[in-house]
Amino acid sequence: MSNQTSLRGPIFNQDSTEFFFTHGPDEVSAAAVDAYIDQLAAAGIGTFISCLNAMKANFASKVWETDWHGYDPKGPDDQPVLHQLPAAAIPGTRKRLDSAKHLAESGVDFHSRALARCRHHGIGAWVSVRMNDVHDCVAVESPLLSTFFKAQREAKQLRAPHRQSDWWADHGLDWERADVQEHYFKFVQEQLATRDIDGLELDWMRFVFHFRPGRELAGGQAITAWMQRVRAECDQAEQRLGHPVKLGVRVPSRPETARRCGLDGVAWARAGLIDLLVPTPFWATTDFDMPLCEWRRLVDGTRVHLAGGLEIRYQPVPNGPAGMMTPELAAGAAMNVLHGGADSVYLFNYFPSGHSLAKDWGWANINAGFRAMQDAAKLQAVPRTHAVTFHDVRAPGEAADNALPGVDTKLDFQWPPGCAFRVQTGPKPGADRRAELLLEFERAPAARDEIQVFLNSQRVTADSPTPERIMRFLVPAATISDEAQVVELVAGPDVKFRVLRVEVSFAAA
Amino acid sequence: MSNQTSLRGPIFNQDSTEFFFTHGPDEVSAAAVDAYIDQLAAAGIGTFISCLNAMKANFASKVWETDWHGYDPKGPDDQPVLHQLPAAAIPGTRKRLDSAKHLAESGVDFHSRALARCRHHGIGAWVSVRMNDVHDCVAVESPLLSTFFKAQREAKQLRAPHRQSDWWADHGLDWERADVQEHYFKFVQEQLATRDIDGLELDWMRFVFHFRPGRELAGGQAITAWMQRVRAECDQAEQRLGHPVKLGVRVPSRPETARRCGLDGVAWARAGLIDLLVPTPFWATTDFDMPLCEWRRLVDGTRVHLAGGLEIRYQPVPNGPAGMMTPELAAGAAMNVLHGGADSVYLFNYFPSGHSLAKDWGWANINAGFRAMQDAAKLQAVPRTHAVTFHDVRAPGEAADNALPGVDTKLDFQWPPGCAFRVQTGPKPGADRRAELLLEFERAPAARDEIQVFLNSQRVTADSPTPERIMRFLVPAATISDEAQVVELVAGPDVKFRVLRVEVSFAAA
Repeated sequence: MSNQTSLRGPIFNQDSTEFFFTHGPDEVSAAAVDAYIDQLAAAGIGTFISCLNAMKANFASKVWETDWHGYDPKGPDDQPVLHQLPAAAIPGTRKRLDSAKHLAESGVDFHSRALARCRHHGIGAWVSVRMNDVHDCVAVESPLLSTFFKAQREAKQLRAPHRQSDWWADHGLDWERADVQEHYFKFVQEQLATRDIDGLELDWMRFVFHFRPGRELAGGQAITAWMQRVRAECDQAEQRLGHPVKLGVRVPSRPETARRCGLDGVAWARAGLIDLLVPTPFWATTDFDMPLCEWRRLVDGTRVHLAGGLEIRYQPVPNGPAGMMTPELAAGAAMNVLHGGADSVYLFNYFPSGHSLAKDWGWANINAGFRAMQDAAKLQAVPRTHAVTFHDVRAPGEAADNALPGVDTKLDFQWPPGCAFRVQTGPKPGADRRAELLLEFERAPAARDEIQVFLNSQRVTADSPTPERIMRFLVPAATISDEAQVVELVAGPDVKFRVLRVEVSFAAA
Repeated sequence: MSNQTSLRGPIFNQDSTEFFFTHGPDEVSAAAVDAYIDQLAAAGIGTFISCLNAMKANFASKVWETDWHGYDPKGPDDQPVLHQLPAAAIPGTRKRLDSAKHLAESGVDFHSRALARCRHHGIGAWVSVRMNDVHDCVAVESPLLSTFFKAQREAKQLRAPHRQSDWWADHGLDWERADVQEHYFKFVQEQLATRDIDGLELDWMRFVFHFRPGRELAGGQAITAWMQRVRAECDQAEQRLGHPVKLGVRVPSRPETARRCGLDGVAWARAGLIDLLVPTPFWATTDFDMPLCEWRRLVDGTRVHLAGGLEIRYQPVPNGPAGMMTPELAAGAAMNVLHGGADSVYLFNYFPSGHSLAKDWGWANINAGFRAMQDAAKLQAVPRTHAVTFHDVRAPGEAADNALPGVDTKLDFQWPPGCAFRVQTGPKPGADRRAELLLEFERAPAARDEIQVFLNSQRVTADSPTPERIMRFLVPAATISDEAQVVELVAGPDVKFRVLRVEVSFAAA
């Protein structure tokens, strides 16, 4: 079977939930689906990946419950599947369920229609299966909970009953269980047997934790065996369709973390099981420090297409203030993955309406921003910001390694005095770009020079004559290194500080 | 040129300083050198690597100053090179210098003699060059400081003058400088032109930081070009000697950290520049969590021999209490690297006298312990302890990721409640082994069950009926996983704890 057909970026993962939240039952139609895809085509995306499910199918599956299973459109707001929702959430939920049901019953399958429209535009047409979605898993009842999940929960067969916590990840399904594996296999099989797709993605990042703590490596072997069965179904689909049907995965942002979560993307690539490998953060924040160079080396010699995943949130300090990604931050993160060696940029949760991009960025910026992600040369031409964030997935027991907040540390044997950051920045910018360092402190320094700031061992000076909580430093072009900048803060022995945000920006001078 | 000759472990790096500290000028002789090697042969080492230098040569080099350069054996204790030493350090220093000078002047080269004796025993015979040794670098004067170093310091050309710190690593030579590169090249060249060696090691881990902060990636390219010249000298030596002359490197324990320090061992292996690659901690502690599996994958398809480096110290908490490695800890660390995929175990600072192993372990344990490190099957038969330590090298700006101390954390969105550790443990032990978990707390819990402890999601119970600061838990064999164990601690919302040490031990039942 040929694997010559190319995958093109940016790759756009879409949860149809957005469509059903933003289109009422009287607005959903084949034409509305087409219009949705037409917008993305105008933004220059290369591959569209349509998400099929959370715990239930968001289309009229014959082997899984649908999202609207158990929901009575004519029933009251206190019907069983709704009565535990907050009152404010009920109208939106009903709209989503009504719309999805209405579209399906009108004979339109959202995904088939969307993928056909992708083909019309020359956009790659994929579907994605979330492998362990736990939205609302700590609720007793919700339209999102499947009968299968509730039975597993009732039997105390979820991932981590031992510590009886309310943490969402402890309420995932246990993928070492054969019944869990079969539940998903029949769903995946249905897609491969019935759809015309260029590829199927197994989204292991929804929601990352699939095994009892400590069982990840054994569990990962079970997943690998399971994926061999899926690969065989892909091969059958290729025979049926007469064109390649690729297999993709989303995994944690670092190779060892992924392996230690039982999600050994490198092993899968080397075994020839997969065609698309997407290291990515989970959700808390886009990860500006994914080791793409290392991923690239690890999959050298395999056929795998390597994409770097961007999330929609920007959260410098764990559990600290978070916002949505700006066009400049998204361009910076995209540049980091392409410069690191990824073949493509992969966007998750970049919903024009669902996450307000249409409002916050505007369609002009969406179109220009997504299109620039097609390659590094295009990204060189747009303003970009590179930030310090954190790895929001760690394997059970892996130590925390959060860069922020950064605090003053005193000299000890092991590490230098002060505080240092490493900011991944992609290629050295052209001479026409202006480079700026931004530091946000918890409190403004007492004096402008109380804290000395160095970038790549060169002193940089704040542009404001007075100390500020947010300080900006102009960085001479000659000081900038390729790939990464080292930012160091040094202060006297009595000075305390706490850094909350570090950004390096390149823009037109 | 053939690279078929095998490298065998354990690989033992020896600083001849130990020999000169423990043998007076009237005790050094060719026979004493032979006897020293005979002891190591009895311990079953496979390869001996003799360290040639700190800032000066510890033998009669013709191109570098010797250790005893500027030292007058007949002069007083306040002669220039000695007068700044603490009084207590002077007798030992004089003994070392007197012995080294005396042996050299008697016509015996320590290294040539030692390597010849290795050949007699069938032990691989290597030398090692420390690439940037900074012992005593913050002293104004010391016998350890070379004229070259002092001139670089005087000219403010060391690694990090910008922040004017007293941190030792800021006083290394700057390897982006051509004069530094040539200074080392002539020394390396002398060894390759004159000695009969199986290999030459470039010890970049003495002392790790070779570039101005932020210049590591550019500097690493300069090192790579420099190493190509060294490789050509190795090829000439092979012609001269008629047998392979291999090239080795020591680099930081994690691939990305190494690359970001300018020490890209993976790139060197892939470029065919090196034959031996040794990821290793620096000094503070043996690293029980080196990602050898990842290193293995990264060098697949190259000819490189991969060894995992053990240091002599054991320090669970950074800057906390430290001890020397015990035979059980060394067996555990050795098993971790072999099970991870290393070809050999590499010992650094395992000096029988210099670090008191002869006294603390005894020669019987040295012999049995080193010999067991020849392969994983032998290590399965001896008691071993696996611990949680930390990565003692981070590239400039890399975030801290210390596992200990472990503290109670409360539930948040991102991570589970409580505290968790991942303990690398090598292969699942045989059924005849008894598994034990040890936890050391800063303060004893208020009650025995105040903190629930789980290993791989199974509750384990302390063997003591009362709460203790150090608690031991017997772990059923069926609970143990291959490669790693996840240890979780969960306590009520008001319970505070601080874990200082985590160990998993396997011993005869």
